Amino acid sequence: MEIKTAILISIGDELLIGQTIDTNSAWIAKHLNRLGIQIALKLTISDTQEAIKSALDLSLPAADLVICTGGLGPTKDDVTKHTLNDYFGAKLVRNQTVHDHVVNFFKLRNRPMLPVNDMQADVPDNCTVLFNRMGTAPGMLFEYKDTWIVSLPGVPREMQIIVEEELLPRIKAQTQREQQIIYKYLLLFGRGESFVAQDIADIENVLPEHIHLSYLPNYGELKLRLSGIGTDYATLDNEMNVYLGLIRDRVADYVVCAEDLNLEESLVKQLKEHRLTIATAESCTGGLIGSKITDVAGASTVYRGSVIAYHNEIKQTELNVSKEILNTVGAVSEATVLEMARSVKAKMGVDIAVAVSGILGPTGATAEKPVGLVCFAIASVKGVQAFSFNFPYDRNLNKEMAAKTALNLVRKEMMHLISDG
Amino acid sequence: MEIKTAILISIGDELLIGQTIDTNSAWIAKHLNRLGIQIALKLTISDTQEAIKSALDLSLPAADLVICTGGLGPTKDDVTKHTLNDYFGAKLVRNQTVHDHVVNFFKLRNRPMLPVNDMQADVPDNCTVLFNRMGTAPGMLFEYKDTWIVSLPGVPREMQIIVEEELLPRIKAQTQREQQIIYKYLLLFGRGESFVAQDIADIENVLPEHIHLSYLPNYGELKLRLSGIGTDYATLDNEMNVYLGLIRDRVADYVVCAEDLNLEESLVKQLKEHRLTIATAESCTGGLIGSKITDVAGASTVYRGSVIAYHNEIKQTELNVSKEILNTVGAVSEATVLEMARSVKAKMGVDIAVAVSGILGPTGATAEKPVGLVCFAIASVKGVQAFSFNFPYDRNLNKEMAAKTALNLVRKEMMHLISDG
Repeated sequence: MEIKTAILISIGDELLIGQTIDTNSAWIAKHLNRLGIQIALKLTISDTQEAIKSALDLSLPAADLVICTGGLGPTKDDVTKHTLNDYFGAKLVRNQTVHDHVVNFFKLRNRPMLPVNDMQADVPDNCTVLFNRMGTAPGMLFEYKDTWIVSLPGVPREMQIIVEEELLPRIKAQTQREQQIIYKYLLLFGRGESFVAQDIADIENVLPEHIHLSYLPNYGELKLRLSGIGTDYATLDNEMNVYLGLIRDRVADYVVCAEDLNLEESLVKQLKEHRLTIATAESCTGGLIGSKITDVAGASTVYRGSVIAYHNEIKQTELNVSKEILNTVGAVSEATVLEMARSVKAKMGVDIAVAVSGILGPTGATAEKPVGLVCFAIASVKGVQAFSFNFPYDRNLNKEMAAKTALNLVRKEMMHLISDG
Repeated sequence: MEIKTAILISIGDELLIGQTIDTNSAWIAKHLNRLGIQIALKLTISDTQEAIKSALDLSLPAADLVICTGGLGPTKDDVTKHTLNDYFGAKLVRNQTVHDHVVNFFKLRNRPMLPVNDMQADVPDNCTVLFNRMGTAPGMLFEYKDTWIVSLPGVPREMQIIVEEELLPRIKAQTQREQQIIYKYLLLFGRGESFVAQDIADIENVLPEHIHLSYLPNYGELKLRLSGIGTDYATLDNEMNVYLGLIRDRVADYVVCAEDLNLEESLVKQLKEHRLTIATAESCTGGLIGSKITDVAGASTVYRGSVIAYHNEIKQTELNVSKEILNTVGAVSEATVLEMARSVKAKMGVDIAVAVSGILGPTGATAEKPVGLVCFAIASVKGVQAFSFNFPYDRNLNKEMAAKTALNLVRKEMMHLISDG
């Protein structure tokens, strides 16, 4: 049996009433796709016995793999395990390995164990347990006719670790592929998907059948992924490098890196290689730029710190922005960010400093300054420079775009410093 | 006919391969819920004729309202309109109002119109057009037996404007509602789902059939949601307040608020009400606390700013942490965060300051200090206090928990200040 198609079932009333946005199924879809498994359908259902049973009735005949997420916690509104137990005519038995793990889990955290936690180690006697290193609800794998049915907890990091450590290896072992799959990546920043598609249309049109190009946009970032299938690794690898090189040359102005990294990961890696240090002075982004940089493990060798000056008084006292500037051109201006960048660079003694001030919305606009106006400045040994952008999105997305734009400006300044030797 | 249940169908391969996360259906679900319409099921399907037809076959007998989003653009991979046209035995006719709007749309933007854009004004002759003020693809409403079938574009702002201006008014006019749905919320912090379940087990056990309790955990936060259905609003509301009060009293130590808010939203709201200001001094969280606070629109009235001192030198120069402290007890210590909190409070002139320093992992542990150790300090007019926590998670989650714990410590200090008058 080879697994070619999958159906994803997300279980939970919080998903149906729109309180929680389902990110699990997109994550699972991406990982299955890399193994060449297509998602035929996604279902989101209520956490009731009837809804789960109907979804299984519908899905089992229609796919090789059915993955349910959610509804495995210890409280009684979590019904998935009992429903699956009934559905596959099993009975619940205590699994010793899982029970030891749960006991240990609570012991390590110095927390008393409750009877409901003991019961998390009870699993249907006809399933394979998928060990959950990060939590107390085990994953389960049932086989029914030619279909695998998998049940996973809804907590993203628990779901992810079980998929990575327990499920994907089983799928790979089951599917004896002679075929090699190779992925190559190109991260771009600052050019929209449809423009890039137009830039490289002629290259995309001549890609052979066995090499596929995907566009993976993420708020300003655009990751291009080439996936190739072939029998000989070296041949395929060479062939893919040729196409990657063609694409890279065409969109050279926007290329961040040719690795499967995001913007901040690539930035921290390159700064570290060139032993450059950075600092930030943030107003409207409120710490998001610093937070993104420090999401990367090892950021401490390049990132020294930041001043968040959300209130104008703090811009004066901590970053030397003059009262005059604030009273005339205002806090959202190139004059303000230039002073913020200069000051934080001096204060923190870094190679590159970036400063940001803007109006993210929904309120705050003035006659001259619309929502979405964000000013940036970059300071380095080469001097100080300011930039203004108008972002057309809502508050959250304007904030995200402002933080990423700041990181990209740091990256560009870094490239200047490096190329000067 | 009364509309009680709905099924949402999201159409698009980009949703199935996990490239785009579906936020439309959560938005629609929330808006329908407010009218007392329950979402029975959400489907995500490929944009092919067959997939759309199967989804309609499945949905039409099972709900009063079926809403399809996506697959209405001008390019050839958008097949929803043609499929619906066939499915309901209609023929496409040019709608003059829509066509005038499309022509005008392009004229205003100074863009040439293509034949495919003319065709966007062709609609099935048995549907009601739902006018799309924000774009060129009209919404469509079909009636089939006792079910309404609605097709909307996938672009969020176009979908939203059609729902708000065209669909919801029609549903309200149609539905003379007898049933009321009421939701009540209680946000807790710092107590796990299973403990809370045990704390309130006796209350949960006596909840009547028409009142349901859900547990919605989110990394340290736990939202409890009571949903009730009844014919008389006031009676139901009173009844639910009784149960909410019982639960609230039982878990009083952990209650953040009784609203549908998250931790930072509730904190900013309460600080604003009591005219209190805050600042942060962050090391390991790198700006995440400030970023969370400024995610809340209107945070500027309570949040003044922050010093992010990621490097130890910055802790010395900007936050007065002495070399002696850093060399003896180290940067991750209560002595360090106490000084950080004191200094940033003085620097920023705020009512409450919080400081954080810790080891998030994966590296950085020492013989005495494990990964996950995070020290916090709170400074206010009542003095300075330090706390240490051991988080057992990975880098990202330790960071998230550290930021939320800091916000919760600020909240507790705020409660002390308020209760003192």
